[in-house]
Amino acid sequence: MNTPSQRLAALRQTMNTQSFDAWIIPSADPHLSEYLPQHWQARVYVSGFTGSAGTLVVKKDSADLWADSRYWEQAAQQLAGSGIALQKLGLGKTHVEDLAESLPENARVGIAPDMLSLAAKRRLKSAFAAKNISLVHSGDILAAVWENRAALPQSPVYPHDAVFVNESAAAKLARVRAAMKEQGADYHLVSSLDDTAWLTNLRGSDVPFNPVFLSYLLIGQNQAVLFAAPEALTPAARAVLAEAAIDIAGYHEAAAALSQINGSLLIDPAKTAVSTLAQLPDSVRLVESTNPSTLFKSMKSAADIAHIRETMRQDGAALCGFFAELEQKLANGETVTELDIDTLLLAHRSRRPYFVSPSFNTIAGYNANGALPHYSATPEAHAVIGGNGLLLIDSGGQYQGGTTDITRVMPVGTPSAAQKRDFTLVLKAHIALAQAVFPENIPAPMIDALCRAPLWQAQCDYGHGTGHGVGYFLNVHEGPQVISYHAAPNPGHAMKAGMLSSNEPGLYRPQQWGIRIENLVVNQPVENPAEAAFGRFLCFETVTLCPIDTRLVDKDLMTAAETEWLNRYHAQVREKLLPLVEGAAKAWLEARTAAV
Amino acid sequence: MNTPSQRLAALRQTMNTQSFDAWIIPSADPHLSEYLPQHWQARVYVSGFTGSAGTLVVKKDSADLWADSRYWEQAAQQLAGSGIALQKLGLGKTHVEDLAESLPENARVGIAPDMLSLAAKRRLKSAFAAKNISLVHSGDILAAVWENRAALPQSPVYPHDAVFVNESAAAKLARVRAAMKEQGADYHLVSSLDDTAWLTNLRGSDVPFNPVFLSYLLIGQNQAVLFAAPEALTPAARAVLAEAAIDIAGYHEAAAALSQINGSLLIDPAKTAVSTLAQLPDSVRLVESTNPSTLFKSMKSAADIAHIRETMRQDGAALCGFFAELEQKLANGETVTELDIDTLLLAHRSRRPYFVSPSFNTIAGYNANGALPHYSATPEAHAVIGGNGLLLIDSGGQYQGGTTDITRVMPVGTPSAAQKRDFTLVLKAHIALAQAVFPENIPAPMIDALCRAPLWQAQCDYGHGTGHGVGYFLNVHEGPQVISYHAAPNPGHAMKAGMLSSNEPGLYRPQQWGIRIENLVVNQPVENPAEAAFGRFLCFETVTLCPIDTRLVDKDLMTAAETEWLNRYHAQVREKLLPLVEGAAKAWLEARTAAV
Repeated sequence: MNTPSQRLAALRQTMNTQSFDAWIIPSADPHLSEYLPQHWQARVYVSGFTGSAGTLVVKKDSADLWADSRYWEQAAQQLAGSGIALQKLGLGKTHVEDLAESLPENARVGIAPDMLSLAAKRRLKSAFAAKNISLVHSGDILAAVWENRAALPQSPVYPHDAVFVNESAAAKLARVRAAMKEQGADYHLVSSLDDTAWLTNLRGSDVPFNPVFLSYLLIGQNQAVLFAAPEALTPAARAVLAEAAIDIAGYHEAAAALSQINGSLLIDPAKTAVSTLAQLPDSVRLVESTNPSTLFKSMKSAADIAHIRETMRQDGAALCGFFAELEQKLANGETVTELDIDTLLLAHRSRRPYFVSPSFNTIAGYNANGALPHYSATPEAHAVIGGNGLLLIDSGGQYQGGTTDITRVMPVGTPSAAQKRDFTLVLKAHIALAQAVFPENIPAPMIDALCRAPLWQAQCDYGHGTGHGVGYFLNVHEGPQVISYHAAPNPGHAMKAGMLSSNEPGLYRPQQWGIRIENLVVNQPVENPAEAAFGRFLCFETVTLCPIDTRLVDKDLMTAAETEWLNRYHAQVREKLLPLVEGAAKAWLEARTAAV
Repeated sequence: MNTPSQRLAALRQTMNTQSFDAWIIPSADPHLSEYLPQHWQARVYVSGFTGSAGTLVVKKDSADLWADSRYWEQAAQQLAGSGIALQKLGLGKTHVEDLAESLPENARVGIAPDMLSLAAKRRLKSAFAAKNISLVHSGDILAAVWENRAALPQSPVYPHDAVFVNESAAAKLARVRAAMKEQGADYHLVSSLDDTAWLTNLRGSDVPFNPVFLSYLLIGQNQAVLFAAPEALTPAARAVLAEAAIDIAGYHEAAAALSQINGSLLIDPAKTAVSTLAQLPDSVRLVESTNPSTLFKSMKSAADIAHIRETMRQDGAALCGFFAELEQKLANGETVTELDIDTLLLAHRSRRPYFVSPSFNTIAGYNANGALPHYSATPEAHAVIGGNGLLLIDSGGQYQGGTTDITRVMPVGTPSAAQKRDFTLVLKAHIALAQAVFPENIPAPMIDALCRAPLWQAQCDYGHGTGHGVGYFLNVHEGPQVISYHAAPNPGHAMKAGMLSSNEPGLYRPQQWGIRIENLVVNQPVENPAEAAFGRFLCFETVTLCPIDTRLVDKDLMTAAETEWLNRYHAQVREKLLPLVEGAAKAWLEARTAAV
């Protein structure tokens, strides 16, 4: 069974035996993670499509894969000849709408219970109700079909370096327990891996880029149990758990443990799989909300922020070395491809103290490739950097002292006036958000307009969000805040002091070039507020330290206040990074931070 | 039964006979209108509280009235001695939460079915489910208690003057029928009075300020029936209905007519009362959405906008006369009170062609009274305008050619530096929104930040929304758009070309002064857009024409671009109003539009 069509046929045979009209294979694991262990990459296995997100639906006589715009080209190539049709997400019906409309009354639809969140289950059930279509989630028929399925990962679980831990696991648990009391919950099950990593002050590497490990955490008022592979827990990790009075049980024992509880259980329905709750007694009352730790984790403490500032200095210094070397290679006429960028970046970041790994797959897009916001160069397809053009580089590092995420655009050869205009518009948008002041607790989506206003004035916009939350040596994408007018605001989006977010407006010209300028920013209370009568107000502290290429700035388009911000930022970048760089990196830093 | 406590006692007796644990009396009628006919002012009758909004809940041993902040003082006075406790809306539980928490299991709660929308019924039922509390809405026990209840109003129903009608009722019905087809609805019942007035091109005066009449409109693909008092329909109105092939039936026959339909029925659950649907066969499938006419009505046509522009000239000219006379009276040392403002405004507006009535209760607040955004002077309590201070005047007119709504603030005596600073901050916010550019279809709440940004920079804000929709010789408050970051965005909030909204940022200093600067603005496509690659963009055309008092502007706080906007606006106001004014009004216009 080496081809998607053979795998589809095998799957359909089992579907037929068990009277299924359709089978859904989403991109999901029992923790509803962004990055999936191989073990749960069922959609890749069956369809052959390797993108990071997509949903496969297999029916008796047809099969469809829903993919978002960044993967349309790749999916079309990878699905060719498979018998699976590409459905372009955003242009037509969703897979849920399609199933609800195309299936007959009383049809049976199946999905693996460990790939289905409670919230997603409800959405499906509600869409299926009118035609009495049943949703079966009692097992995974794929298990019989899937040959050589990868085992679960079991990377070592280790403590976050004590130098950077600013709150003990016991103290964090105490805060969660207080929130449980407030919400009337006797127990709380944490399924999301970054929440558990944050709560336990432990880290792992079970998936790429996110320093997390497969686990569940069950918290009661008087006890707590970590369900994780015992073999993976280092002695140091065990010591941390012991100190916080967290017991250890096997990863697979979580669902059974839930069968033993009484009272009420707090869960996040969007982050908890149906399989995890399968044995929960009916008598247990569910209390549903975002995990309390998701909010706590998002609000970095003053001590966290101090480490993040130092990490930004180290990351900025690495970038100075990287850019200096890259520009030298190009000046020397060496062949540099998009793929080399990743290698070179990693080399420079690796030399910095407490560096662990990249925080996501580097996006290095030259000219037309830069216009694809989630572009990823591959050995099979990548551009050589040469001639005239714009090079967009979006990259980040995991350091024990913080997680970084930065995008810069540099000119290669001579930039055109149109490129400089676009760059300057994006810069104006970036500066507008960097200087914004807004009421504490405003839903983050509501401030997106402040960023985009300069682009809108020129009838420009970009399709992605302006800002996502960023972890502290944790996931580079974390909630709850999201700065995007496309998001439906919810109470979890309230802006609070200490939240760390990206500020990343962009502008993309398909087939031509892409621009994005990204720094990380921390929500800070306004210092010495003019008045207190109208509540507390927050502003952003920009913590990322790296020059923004002024060779692309059209100064005529900038206001005096914008130019002042840029020069002030560069003076600060120079002052903070100079002690950490030397030689070519130092010369580069000095040249690129000159005032305009 | 002349006192609230006597009425409460009588109500409780009936509640007891019929085993009710609580009875809810909301501010509502079967059309879910903003302004209620006397006939439905049950809450005023029982509680004695005369505010425009509030919910009374009578239980066996207690009674509570929920009122919002603008009415706390008034409600406290009017409820004194009634045995009804004031519950401050926004500070504690809502009446729904209170009932759900305080009542015992299996309790019985009653409410009149003609004061309960389908949407509100569902909210109550859902809140009551956990304790199996039943919601009874089969009749109004108040009927037996309510002495001398007002009859239904029956003001004449007349056609909107043909000069100002830019689309026939038949054409509007055709658009609604197309939307019904698209949504798979065989029938559509319109309960909201302004939707019916817009669809039929008829107007009335059954409530103050809104030129609407009591009615329902039932639309099928091949027929339509207006349910309204036949005696109220003028011959001209009947002719308009006949031309659109709309049949006429009695107002009270709507519910029975619904008992005769088959298939599917489109309704807006927030705008349709339970009583209206009481006889609907179970076999009829409900299609629920905002009434299609609500969106159509919000998007003014080019011809509508032309009339609105001319109406704004007439209203602006009336205001020139008003302000000139007011300033002269004050200069002469005459005693002028807040109450006189309303009289004087009405006198000036009444002289203008096609003026019908005020579009809402004039808000004239001097100094501390201006700090109450919904202040209403009364014969019992009002300020005399004198000494130094700020006078806020928010008023509007119903003209056959459009509905106006404008707020201005003028200095009396010598304004302080703090007052000028506040005024200038609000002006900057007003200008920021007036000059905004934004993507077509963005949810209106998402652009509120553009307006508030200058206030936020100074740690200031205001509690009300920035903009509401405005009708075309219809309700001064209409949907669907709402420019307010406090609103939860929904698909109906999408900004479309032709929508008419208010732009009314403010700043309120309790016990000191209030400032609000309000113009009406029309969504217009950006003229000659710089590019088309990123979709269509809208901007605002300011249509209100009246000087903004530059004596309150601190020019040092204004950017060059803001000053330029103000001078350009004033040049336009002067040019457009000069031909319509003479004498003192002309001199006033010239003085107040001088460039700064």
